[in-house]
Amino acid sequence: MNIGFIGLGNMGSAIAGRLLKANHTVRVWNRSPANAQKLAAQGAQAAETPDEAFKGDAVFSMLGDDDALRAVLLDSGVLGRASGGALRVHINMATISVAFADELAARHAERGIAYISAPVLGRPDAAAAGKLNIVAAGPASALETVQPLLDVVGQKTWRFGEIASRANVVKLTMNFMLAAAIESMGEAAALATGYEIKAGDILELASQTLFPGPVYQGYGRLIAASAYEPAGFKARLGLKDVRLALAAAEAATTPMPLASQIRDTMLEALARGEGEKEFGVVLGRAAMRRAGR
Amino acid sequence: MNIGFIGLGNMGSAIAGRLLKANHTVRVWNRSPANAQKLAAQGAQAAETPDEAFKGDAVFSMLGDDDALRAVLLDSGVLGRASGGALRVHINMATISVAFADELAARHAERGIAYISAPVLGRPDAAAAGKLNIVAAGPASALETVQPLLDVVGQKTWRFGEIASRANVVKLTMNFMLAAAIESMGEAAALATGYEIKAGDILELASQTLFPGPVYQGYGRLIAASAYEPAGFKARLGLKDVRLALAAAEAATTPMPLASQIRDTMLEALARGEGEKEFGVVLGRAAMRRAGR
Amino acid sequence: MNIGFIGLGNMGSAIAGRLLKANHTVRVWNRSPANAQKLAAQGAQAAETPDEAFKGDAVFSMLGDDDALRAVLLDSGVLGRASGGALRVHINMATISVAFADELAARHAERGIAYISAPVLGRPDAAAAGKLNIVAAGPASALETVQPLLDVVGQKTWRFGEIASRANVVKLTMNFMLAAAIESMGEAAALATGYEIKAGDILELASQTLFPGPVYQGYGRLIAASAYEPAGFKARLGLKDVRLALAAAEAATTPMPLASQIRDTMLEALARGEGEKEFGVVLGRAAMRRAGR
Amino acid sequence: MNIGFIGLGNMGSAIAGRLLKANHTVRVWNRSPANAQKLAAQGAQAAETPDEAFKGDAVFSMLGDDDALRAVLLDSGVLGRASGGALRVHINMATISVAFADELAARHAERGIAYISAPVLGRPDAAAAGKLNIVAAGPASALETVQPLLDVVGQKTWRFGEIASRANVVKLTMNFMLAAAIESMGEAAALATGYEIKAGDILELASQTLFPGPVYQGYGRLIAASAYEPAGFKARLGLKDVRLALAAAEAATTPMPLASQIRDTMLEALARGEGEKEFGVVLGRAAMRRAGR
Repeated sequence: MNIGFIGLGNMGSAIAGRLLKANHTVRVWNRSPANAQKLAAQGAQAAETPDEAFKGDAVFSMLGDDDALRAVLLDSGVLGRASGGALRVHINMATISVAFADELAARHAERGIAYISAPVLGRPDAAAAGKLNIVAAGPASALETVQPLLDVVGQKTWRFGEIASRANVVKLTMNFMLAAAIESMGEAAALATGYEIKAGDILELASQTLFPGPVYQGYGRLIAASAYEPAGFKARLGLKDVRLALAAAEAATTPMPLASQIRDTMLEALARGEGEKEFGVVLGRAAMRRAGR
Repeated sequence: MNIGFIGLGNMGSAIAGRLLKANHTVRVWNRSPANAQKLAAQGAQAAETPDEAFKGDAVFSMLGDDDALRAVLLDSGVLGRASGGALRVHINMATISVAFADELAARHAERGIAYISAPVLGRPDAAAAGKLNIVAAGPASALETVQPLLDVVGQKTWRFGEIASRANVVKLTMNFMLAAAIESMGEAAALATGYEIKAGDILELASQTLFPGPVYQGYGRLIAASAYEPAGFKARLGLKDVRLALAAAEAATTPMPLASQIRDTMLEALARGEGEKEFGVVLGRAAMRRAGR
Repeated sequence: MNIGFIGLGNMGSAIAGRLLKANHTVRVWNRSPANAQKLAAQGAQAAETPDEAFKGDAVFSMLGDDDALRAVLLDSGVLGRASGGALRVHINMATISVAFADELAARHAERGIAYISAPVLGRPDAAAAGKLNIVAAGPASALETVQPLLDVVGQKTWRFGEIASRANVVKLTMNFMLAAAIESMGEAAALATGYEIKAGDILELASQTLFPGPVYQGYGRLIAASAYEPAGFKARLGLKDVRLALAAAEAATTPMPLASQIRDTMLEALARGEGEKEFGVVLGRAAMRRAGR
Repeated sequence: MNIGFIGLGNMGSAIAGRLLKANHTVRVWNRSPANAQKLAAQGAQAAETPDEAFKGDAVFSMLGDDDALRAVLLDSGVLGRASGGALRVHINMATISVAFADELAARHAERGIAYISAPVLGRPDAAAAGKLNIVAAGPASALETVQPLLDVVGQKTWRFGEIASRANVVKLTMNFMLAAAIESMGEAAALATGYEIKAGDILELASQTLFPGPVYQGYGRLIAASAYEPAGFKARLGLKDVRLALAAAEAATTPMPLASQIRDTMLEALARGEGEKEFGVVLGRAAMRRAGR
């Protein structure tokens, strides 16, 4: 297919690269052009403007947050100049707020363009290997049309109906559960180290018994090693996701006390200047730090 | 070996049965004698008194809480009448408080008996299959002596040094992490259902992607199904374990805010009369209940 | 002076009435005209449009929240059509967000109009008696000009510098402390009633010893009496103020865990359908309700 | 009357001195005898043993905590050797646990001695001036007998029935409300200082408007001044009181989330080595510290 791709960070680049390997035509655009050049070397067409990228059979976008997407797509007039004749489906894979997803769905509908929210579970290496889990929602016929593209980058697409923002809600629940698991590891480690038991020993026990899988094992090791850097996922972005979950919950009159608590811990971390450090370690070692360890 | 066994609830009976099948001599005692009779039918010797059971190469105990063990072993004088000549090692598998484990270790040392804390991870069916994970601490030589017995019921023994109560600390960290995972599922489900997404759908997604393993899958399904009964693990016992974790943490000057929050939620649940219902569902549906769902 | 007044709820009407009694010329405007007619009967001029009211030596505004003020002043173009030639000072007494106060100050400055935030402490009867405490911030010269007007409605003006939004921050700290006092009364009452001690007895003791003054006494009596209605201050507005405090705190990277907890309790209350009931009783009886009392 | 007095800290000495001035015979005992000598210089009889002090028409006790009272009265056998013939009423003014108060009431009843819990509100200077507020519960006839003594040290006695421990519950609710007020001042100050508003300015505003009285004014000034020392009330004792409130609440199946949060903050403070510093400042500045101020 003829595909546009906007936003070439680590994840965006990996997904775009995967689409290229599947022999699709991919026009790429990125705010800083260096990453677009890298994709061009893999066969992509480097678009001069976002308008050039925002057309075709389908456009993927993977920008950092609401503000970045709003700047590129709305404030600059890109969406306002687009139409269903030139672009059929926009697949937004970024983790954005539920309210903004609703706004985007409405604005795309006005232009005759189908809007799909399709945030992903997995890291860039999973994207490069086509092993992502994709959470998708939006108009069913549009989803059918782009499913072959999603199958190129994901091992499975989990559909959540026709209202695009539902996929964003689901993604926020996953990110929240991730943060909660980290908080629980951190408090468990704080208790253990209070009795001269190594954090790594109990986190290893947990990940080999009750909690198999990459989250407990991976973050458990990072926490035990105090691996604040490099930051695979920055603390300030972790706070952002918790904030989005709380905003979505508040709009549905839903208290999430553990999310509130994690938010407060992360605000304290940012006040300590830890915003650019690894989220999992900043959050995961907070309880130990409070206990003087 | 010549083994005594005190406390024949579901878990104790399964472990004792496993030891019988491995051709050990097992003298069993239980406060209500019916369960002892069942084991006798499998080849155990039913002891008339706890003193009769509390001797031999090793004694296992699996009683419900501090109070039950204190009543049977201390208040009745059983430990006071025992000695290292008649009993070498006491292996206590129950989840008891850290402070009581320290007291027991000291009192056993006075009588010349080695005291080992060996709480387990796993349910009775895992015990019957010899697949438990055993967390053990206590005098190294005594542990070596009884390791063959532990290997009969467990797939692996995780050792945490010579101070018996350390094993109890570790067990409490595991139970806390279990409760935290349930709380996180509950809040995630509350957020999701606020947008008409089924709790079961996001919990299934979680357990098939980020959080494989029996905890998220099993409790996820129970929560989605509102399976308050039968109570595999009662809410009031879940509160007890959180309370023990908080007490151990306080003795080590360690705040555990998530544990505090879970404790408060469980107190509310008990005030609602849910103490005898399934812990995972009582805790896991609390966030949904608060949101009016 | 020649004064405009926008927003004639209970508090706005009381303040405008006070200004009339002090022989000022007051042009009043309200979205629903009935309240403007009442003031006209007291000597006010009922303005046909908000533009008519938004001019003179000074304009007071007292609208319910950010949205109401944004609708009347910005979306309708009233501020855009105004200028420093026709209006010198706008004194906004409403409890609005810190971010919106900053935006308003900037937009007024563009039009050459001084913007003062002057939220008040006290109820309508205090306003009618000229006994309010006024928290004010904004350009010093403008504040000097309107101080005689503030002295008509307030017993004291507490100044917090030239940045108008600072007064809003201060107001939010006061409202937060009020909510915190109510939460503390509620939890104290929950503990007491757990021992068959009447809530009213300990709240009366508190207000006659450690905590004199109208807050503990007034809310203590309302809580003890379960006086959910009439709602002097509605629960949903109490939640709004806590939300504004949390938003202001987040913008300053400041965790406020007690505010987070109150917010969660109020979300639960709204989910229970208590949004229109008295804030102090909804919040103040939440802890008792959780304990089954 | 012929009075015994056990426990001569700052508060005990002030109360005993007040009784002496009212011309009562007072036999005093203290673990470290220096304070007893000071009272002897005011006319008291210095008892050689606690037994000597623990008899007469009435005995007052004012020891630091459960452990101190248990050591002096129970472990040493003083109560076991006493009887209703030699001592009519024991008035315990210390802040002890509800459970221990129940135990003491039962043990005194066995010896034929009336036991009254009579914790006080106020500082030593209020005691010296006879201006304490006394919270009392216990057998009505015994209370009638000793009311003239209570009137010597208190301006008012607030009675809470015949079950002595009820007075302890009430005292714990007051101490909790005190801690909650401090927490609220601290979070308010954290918000204000995030906008370069001085903590002292908003706390002064609060204490002169919504929250008159000594608590908000006194602690507000201590917090603003960072007056960690001298410690009028030590942080570790503040934690103890919150812990007693939580224990009493748990026994009545009552969640107190704000108390849980304060407990966690104080545990963190103790882990930071702040246990001997002023409670009000340690707790009151915690929120500012978390925000990096």
